[in-house]
Formats: sequence, C-alpha cells, structure tokens
Amino acid sequence: MSKFRLAVVQLQVSSDKANNLSKVRRLVKEAAGQGSKVVLLPECFNSPYGTSFFSKYAEKIPGESTQMLSEVAKENKLHLVGGSIPEEDSGKLYNTCAVFGPEGELILKHRKIHLFDIDVPGKIRFQESETLSPGNSLSTFDTPFCRVGVGICYDMRFAELAQLYNRKGCQLLVYPGAFNMMTGPAHWELLQRARALDNQMYVATASPARDEAASYVAWGHNLQYLADIRQQIPISSQRRDDLYAVTAMQQGSG
Amino acid sequence: MSKFRLAVVQLQVSSDKANNLSKVRRLVKEAAGQGSKVVLLPECFNSPYGTSFFSKYAEKIPGESTQMLSEVAKENKLHLVGGSIPEEDSGKLYNTCAVFGPEGELILKHRKIHLFDIDVPGKIRFQESETLSPGNSLSTFDTPFCRVGVGICYDMRFAELAQLYNRKGCQLLVYPGAFNMMTGPAHWELLQRARALDNQMYVATASPARDEAASYVAWGHNLQYLADIRQQIPISSQRRDDLYAVTAMQQGSG
Repeated sequence: MSKFRLAVVQLQVSSDKANNLSKVRRLVKEAAGQGSKVVLLPECFNSPYGTSFFSKYAEKIPGESTQMLSEVAKENKLHLVGGSIPEEDSGKLYNTCAVFGPEGELILKHRKIHLFDIDVPGKIRFQESETLSPGNSLSTFDTPFCRVGVGICYDMRFAELAQLYNRKGCQLLVYPGAFNMMTGPAHWELLQRARALDNQMYVATASPARDEAASYVAWGHNLQYLADIRQQIPISSQRRDDLYAVTAMQQGSG
Repeated sequence: MSKFRLAVVQLQVSSDKANNLSKVRRLVKEAAGQGSKVVLLPECFNSPYGTSFFSKYAEKIPGESTQMLSEVAKENKLHLVGGSIPEEDSGKLYNTCAVFGPEGELILKHRKIHLFDIDVPGKIRFQESETLSPGNSLSTFDTPFCRVGVGICYDMRFAELAQLYNRKGCQLLVYPGAFNMMTGPAHWELLQRARALDNQMYVATASPARDEAASYVAWGHNLQYLADIRQQIPISSQRRDDLYAVTAMQQGSG
C-alpha cells in the first residue's frame, strides 16, 4: 500500500494526568474514525513539560500511560507513536517514546538521545540533563506502509540521526516535540523541511497545543511521490561515498 | 577581526566571454569600493550554463579568465571566490571554482564534486556528466576573518559536505550556483537555511542574474554572533559522537 493517513494529535496537556490520558484515548479514536493508520502524539503528553515535573509524572514501561497506549492502539487497530513520557528505570529518568502496533504490542522504546540543554541569555534556559539521562539507541520500526525512524524533539537538530535513518531505509521520520516560544518560531518548521529535503523522506512532528486542545490530520502525497522524487533528483545514488560517510558507531534497536 | 563585508556578485552572463570578464572586473571593483573584503561570483560566470557550451568556453587554469580574477583580486586587495568556469585539464572538463587572495595568488581550485544529473519529466533534464568529470577533493581556505568551505551548486544538496567543513572549523560556506526555474523556487533558499542552521555557519551563494545585471551586498551579523549561537544552542558539543560519525574517506586540498 503506497498511501495511508497519518494523524498528528496535538492535545493540550494539563497537570491532570488522568485527563491527559482520556484526551489521548478520545483523540486517537477520532483520528482512527477518519481513517488514520498511524497516529503521532506529542512529546510529554501525560505530564507538563519541565524538569520539575519529570520525576513526579514518571512511570515504568509498562505502566499506566503506556498500558493505555497499548489498549488504544489495539482498539483502533493502528500504529501509535506514543509521543513521550518521563520514564523511570533503575533509578534513572528518561524522555521516552513508546510505539505500539495494531495488536497492542510494544514495538520499541526510543529514549531521547540528545538532551535539551540550551541557554539563550534573557530568553530561555533549559537543562534536561539536570534530571534526565540520555538514550543510546537508534529506533526504527516497520509498518505495512513504510519504515519509520523515531526521534524526540531536540534529536531533530542533529542531521546525522536522520541521515542514518535514511541509510536504514526509512521513508518517514517522526519527531514528537515541544519547541518553545523562542526556538519554535525560529526553527520548528525549518528543521522539518531540512530533514525532508536532504533525505527525501516524509517528516511528521507533533507538539502539545499552545492554548487549546487541537488535532489535525496531515494532508500529503503518497509514497510513490517519494520514489519519483528520489529518481528525478537522485541524490541518494549520487552521494560520494568515496569521499565521506555517515556511520553509526553503535547499532541501536530496530 | 570579527566583522567584514562579503559581496555577492550576481551578474548577467552572456555568450560574450570578453563582456562577461569585463563585467566581473567592474563589479568586483564596485564591491571593493563599498568595503567588501570577500567577493563571491556565480557558477559559470564566463560562459552560458549548458553542456553544449562547456567545451567551447573551457580554459586551462591559469588561463584568460582566471588571470583576470588574479589581477582583480590583487588590484582590489581582497579574497575573490571565482564562481566557476569550465576548466580543461588533460582532456577532461571540470566545473571549477578558483579562489584568489589579495596578492593575486591562486589559493585553491575546487572542482564540483557532485555533478548535476537530474531528470524531472516534463520539467527539466540536465546531465552534467555527459561532458564533465567530477572533482574529488574538499576545499577550504583561510581569510583573516574566518575559514571558508567551498562547494558548487549541486554540492549544496549534500549535507555531508557542509558537515565536514564544519568539522574542519569553517564559519562560512560559499556556494556559487545556478539553480533553475524549477529547483530554484523549490530549494535554493531552503538549502542555504538548512546548511546554516544545522551547522551554525554563515552561508553565501551567488547565482547568475535571471534577466538583468545585478549585484548586491549582503547584510549580516558579525562572527561573534556565531560564537554566541553556538554557545546558546550548543549542538556542536552535544553531538553524540559515540553514536554516529561523519567522516571524510579521502583528505582533499585545503
């Protein structure tokens, strides 16, 4: 199948975890009703985003939030890219995306590889590393439609990750994210377009809503369009592998 | 010095080589008069762009066109990135950028690494490889202001080249180019922004004018701005070199 509907669910995340989870349940069902076969949730969909919240909202996987994701994926028979939640494992916290298949099975966990540590004087300072540990694995999974590479938010700034996913045969990149009012207007759209153009792949992102619950279904071309573009402007085959290489130093999951 | 003026000369290229060369001479002098210390010319500035023209307009280096560039650089005491010309060497043709320093000295030759071979049905087909051979070297040079990496047109589509120039310490990328009426609106600006954002470098490009002689002087920030951005959003130091690497398979000139 070269055509499928991907839904990006950008819910308004509150401090009420139960409410966040019930919103996800409702919105994924709504997306499924519109024919979506892959649904993408935002980063930190069960918790406010902030280092002071991570430990309070953290769960093991499986746990309450991912159990809900599993049920929702199964009920609606779709692939669910579960944004991210603060994950607790062996005393460490991670920013983790769990992906579930249409039988409700856990396909992979992607732990954010690049922690968001920035300091723009007078505008924003945020240091995920104060509370989180980084993941160390790349994450891809297969759907009946195409292969998908997963990153979380700040991971999107690192072109190498997308390049490796391209080499692994992905046709779609998904990045749950939560850019802010400074980096968002500056770079959110541009980074997506850059990854798509440089790798000739589709890119989907999901952010928490700014001030009201919102969801929308992405409009797009079918996968044949990618094949056409890759043939017309054949940069994949024209790469000068004799001059440079992007290599994985460590094989990850997927 | 953290601040300098770079001029992008986008002249209208005609089939009259002598006229093209005299335009360059005049426009570089004009840019120098406005304080420019680095001047960038477009791809194929001495010849119409097209596989049918390359052999007719090709020159050895040194030759008529590059001799002019050398003189102009020396007369105006600036670094001149000489766009490109069709170069003949040992029976082969290259698309070559020659860079001259303020003493008129030839600093480097960059031969286009990625030949422009695309085929978009009903829109454009162009195959540089029908007449040109590719270069096999990366090209960087130093100015009193910053280190510069050089690519030509289609080279800009390959993120790896810019990433290697970043690793080599460049703060500025220059790409003489000649995108067309299909790829230009689609990708010319986006590729420049992507290279600049992903590598936190300045990017300058020069194209032949579409329909009238034109030149303009770029406005910009000083080099301290780069240092600030690299500190505030420190993706260079946050790269996961334990997970991936972009490596040069062959050391080039510069």
